[in-house]
Amino acid sequence: MCANALARAGASVRIVDKRAEHVLAGQADGIQPRTIEVFQSYGLAERLLKEGNQMHMAAFYNPSPDGGIERTGRTADAPAPTARYPYKVTLHQGAIEQIFLDSMAKEGLRVDRQTVPTSIKLSTDEAELKDPQAYAVTVVLQHLDGEPGQDTEIVRAKYVLGSDGAHSWVRKTFGITMVGEQTNFVWGVVDIIPDTDFPDIRNRCAIHSHNGSCMVVPREGNKVRLYVQLTGETSAVDRETGRVDRSRIGPQELMQVAKKTFYPYRIDADRFDWWTIYIIGQRVASKFSAQERVFIAGDACHTHSPKAGQGMNASMNDTHNLAWKLAYVLRGWADLSLLKTYELERRKYAQELIDFDKKFSALFSGKPRTKDNQHGVSHEQFLEAFNAYGGFSSGTNVHYPPSAIVNDAHQQLASNLVIGERMLPHAFICAADARPFDVQDFLPADARFKILVFLGDISNSQQTARVQKLAEDFASPKSFYRKFGGEDPSRVFDIVSIGSGSKDQVNYTDVPLGLRTHWSKILLDDTDMFARNGGGGYDKYGIDSLSGVIVVVRPDGYVGMVAPFEGLTTIEAYFAGFIKAQ
Amino acid sequence: MCANALARAGASVRIVDKRAEHVLAGQADGIQPRTIEVFQSYGLAERLLKEGNQMHMAAFYNPSPDGGIERTGRTADAPAPTARYPYKVTLHQGAIEQIFLDSMAKEGLRVDRQTVPTSIKLSTDEAELKDPQAYAVTVVLQHLDGEPGQDTEIVRAKYVLGSDGAHSWVRKTFGITMVGEQTNFVWGVVDIIPDTDFPDIRNRCAIHSHNGSCMVVPREGNKVRLYVQLTGETSAVDRETGRVDRSRIGPQELMQVAKKTFYPYRIDADRFDWWTIYIIGQRVASKFSAQERVFIAGDACHTHSPKAGQGMNASMNDTHNLAWKLAYVLRGWADLSLLKTYELERRKYAQELIDFDKKFSALFSGKPRTKDNQHGVSHEQFLEAFNAYGGFSSGTNVHYPPSAIVNDAHQQLASNLVIGERMLPHAFICAADARPFDVQDFLPADARFKILVFLGDISNSQQTARVQKLAEDFASPKSFYRKFGGEDPSRVFDIVSIGSGSKDQVNYTDVPLGLRTHWSKILLDDTDMFARNGGGGYDKYGIDSLSGVIVVVRPDGYVGMVAPFEGLTTIEAYFAGFIKAQ
Repeated sequence: MCANALARAGASVRIVDKRAEHVLAGQADGIQPRTIEVFQSYGLAERLLKEGNQMHMAAFYNPSPDGGIERTGRTADAPAPTARYPYKVTLHQGAIEQIFLDSMAKEGLRVDRQTVPTSIKLSTDEAELKDPQAYAVTVVLQHLDGEPGQDTEIVRAKYVLGSDGAHSWVRKTFGITMVGEQTNFVWGVVDIIPDTDFPDIRNRCAIHSHNGSCMVVPREGNKVRLYVQLTGETSAVDRETGRVDRSRIGPQELMQVAKKTFYPYRIDADRFDWWTIYIIGQRVASKFSAQERVFIAGDACHTHSPKAGQGMNASMNDTHNLAWKLAYVLRGWADLSLLKTYELERRKYAQELIDFDKKFSALFSGKPRTKDNQHGVSHEQFLEAFNAYGGFSSGTNVHYPPSAIVNDAHQQLASNLVIGERMLPHAFICAADARPFDVQDFLPADARFKILVFLGDISNSQQTARVQKLAEDFASPKSFYRKFGGEDPSRVFDIVSIGSGSKDQVNYTDVPLGLRTHWSKILLDDTDMFARNGGGGYDKYGIDSLSGVIVVVRPDGYVGMVAPFEGLTTIEAYFAGFIKAQ
Repeated sequence: MCANALARAGASVRIVDKRAEHVLAGQADGIQPRTIEVFQSYGLAERLLKEGNQMHMAAFYNPSPDGGIERTGRTADAPAPTARYPYKVTLHQGAIEQIFLDSMAKEGLRVDRQTVPTSIKLSTDEAELKDPQAYAVTVVLQHLDGEPGQDTEIVRAKYVLGSDGAHSWVRKTFGITMVGEQTNFVWGVVDIIPDTDFPDIRNRCAIHSHNGSCMVVPREGNKVRLYVQLTGETSAVDRETGRVDRSRIGPQELMQVAKKTFYPYRIDADRFDWWTIYIIGQRVASKFSAQERVFIAGDACHTHSPKAGQGMNASMNDTHNLAWKLAYVLRGWADLSLLKTYELERRKYAQELIDFDKKFSALFSGKPRTKDNQHGVSHEQFLEAFNAYGGFSSGTNVHYPPSAIVNDAHQQLASNLVIGERMLPHAFICAADARPFDVQDFLPADARFKILVFLGDISNSQQTARVQKLAEDFASPKSFYRKFGGEDPSRVFDIVSIGSGSKDQVNYTDVPLGLRTHWSKILLDDTDMFARNGGGGYDKYGIDSLSGVIVVVRPDGYVGMVAPFEGLTTIEAYFAGFIKAQ
């Protein structure tokens, strides 16, 4: 994610991996709704959706009076009604990696494999550390496939990211600690093509049985992943090191546990694609960087249960957050301080993730409520938690706190467009040709700030005058647009104007040129010709349909600030907080 | 279209073209809604939609009192509410050809270029002509790039298709005449990137001005095609031969005519991508084949005005209709008589197309109604015709008459699913995982008949018994399914079962195995988890939601027949009319 984003932004990137090949099976596989939106912003969602399985529905099974299980309900698997893609995608990690590898390759970037860092050091020169353009980090790389004596290489880098997993060498090297605890929950995972009469095998299922718990995750093709909770078998796992004694347990044993959980339904498999066993740890790194020169992301920063399918999503969104900031610093547009917002935003999120995971996985791993166990977890409790956390686990409610890049002073002007959250998807039509688009189609991850000018009603003459004035203000050399955009503001900003009028009446040519860079960049809050998409966007966002508002969306798709037409100085102050005047 | 479809069906195909390269600019460019559906059935719509422009809106301009033009209205450009894609796509012919060339290449088929036929002969042996597997046609090919003396080749073919345009050599060789007339309407076409203040430049526009008529067709990127009606300039065109004297007229002159039509709006262009001039002919070939061994398609069969953007669509749909029939005959599954339905269905359509075109282009080319010309065409007349013909021009109402492959005896059992028309698109959800699909996603152009079993309400025990009985009937060796499907009916048939129940209750496992070939092939008439798609399909189709019905969809996506559960003998009789028992 990070290498691809930086390569797309034109940065010089080197990416190394110890592995000789990319992941081929198993590992992470769940993509949450917000992450699909992020993929879309990089132009990668189409392939993801084509190759992956979609999980729309979740089913819940609980102990039945006759000793088996029975379905207690079905519900939306991604209870996130604001999601553009209101479902999850499952696809094995190797296929997801390949999507990124192919995208990077288009930028000329490939992974240097069988390569490990053996030493990483920050410059001891304070001035160098504070110079965003200095090569302040020295890394020694060892090429595992190199000739002895010619297998080491010294790289001087401006910035380094360690995406090196739960046992992160980068994290340990900089003495960053993990805060939190190991749990007692031991789980096994196995990927199969099932032969079964279980009616919800293509839905995500939470099964709480008399004989333990199991989670069903349907996968691409006919594959299914089963997560089973282990009890007696846990002696095969060393609780100190987390290592599994593979002579004492294997996929056959995991299937035996699953079979008991599924009873009275039958489930069989004649081969295993992949399997593993682990103990859940719930920990967050104390810091996410060493002096804003070396960063860590993903499992290196946070470990938690896989129950809610968060891991890969949390990790990819870490560097989606970091990449544009690095790009701005590397271009000389922003100071090092911008990079502090990475830890601010993503560590807050990671803490919330662990809190969520503690509650959610305790519910999941807890004993179900039965006649004999009135203190167990009831279906209602589970469902309530499942739905209450839907927005968080789907990623659509992730909220970044106020900072240099999140200014919520004018929140009331777009009351339902939460500043610090991702721009709410909604369908609008193109004023020039009535073609429907989602507003997110205008928010590609191209490292530009999107200036969404909600024009209001330009059939009203007073509003037309305000819009005209706004266009003149944008054109002024003193405006934020020119001050931070320089000679060619389109490098930094992209203006999209959105009117509240009707497609029968509005002409895209009515929008003054200063707020209209291309015919395709004027939208209308109206339905398409057959009322299948669009309409009601101003209301949904809580924006006044007469007087409009300006919404600043960050390069990562999060709402950075909102301002009235007469508040361009507020916008200037916002950008002055982290961007240098050109 | 034909070569690609046949290659996909596993036929041995040779395709030759006189041209050294595929078309690079201009030519046909409009894809109608039904044709997009057909592209989708070949897996080609995604690329078409990505590369093409979408025309959603049409605008109408008429003479204004001050001597210029004024907008009299906007409406849907494709007035076809049943369309899955309710808009047109414009993309230059070269890009469309490339989509097919790439698809064919996947099947190992490439165009032999710089190759022309010099002779084509049918066998004089009656027995050979009647043997579907005989190589009854002899074609002599000349390779324009071959060495003299080694540049001819004799090809013996089972069947030959001439897609060789309005001046078809194949048609002339077999003495097939064109019935109809040349008109007096002379039009010029020019492709430009406009510099304009015209507010509807990205909509399809019909402009009727004091100074002539013009049609605006926005294209991919920023391109626009202008069709202008020529009056004084027509002496540059020889009415006998249709040839244009390019020394007397060119794109600059066409732009001068356009500029007058657009007044008071300004339109300029500094270069011309492509241009042409033509006289409209409205003719249909007297026959579409010579003894069902040599066929003609496209402009070889029908010529008409380009005003309604029909040409490429009519042509591609000709061979979409023919290809599966040829495949069945080539496989030995059907007799030559099946091929007669090509002319039956497509010549009827071509006649309707010419009738439509006469009315439509007369309206378009006629003088507008003004104060001084009360007999001219009023905006209301034009709009009425535009909307009335929407279904026909969009291709969604194209209707094939009763024949061996269209049996409308049980029309009342699916009253809104017109037998002989394409299967109506509608969203259903997959019963196993609640994922929404359009029913057309289950109708790929894979040369199979789709057996859509509308199961009715399987929560009703009587209906469950009927469904169970139906599954047993399908499994019987005497059933149409086994009789015409043989050992592996999936070569000929694909069963999709569609229940009327609710996603909360129905289990895909409730459908008996005889009507369930895979978990993904059970659909439900219900909304998805967020009610964004689906629901109401039984009602829309006019099918009883308790008792269901069987709908047979032809390989080209047209409804062939409908039968009640107890009417399997009717289905058997239908297939016996053109398929041989296996």
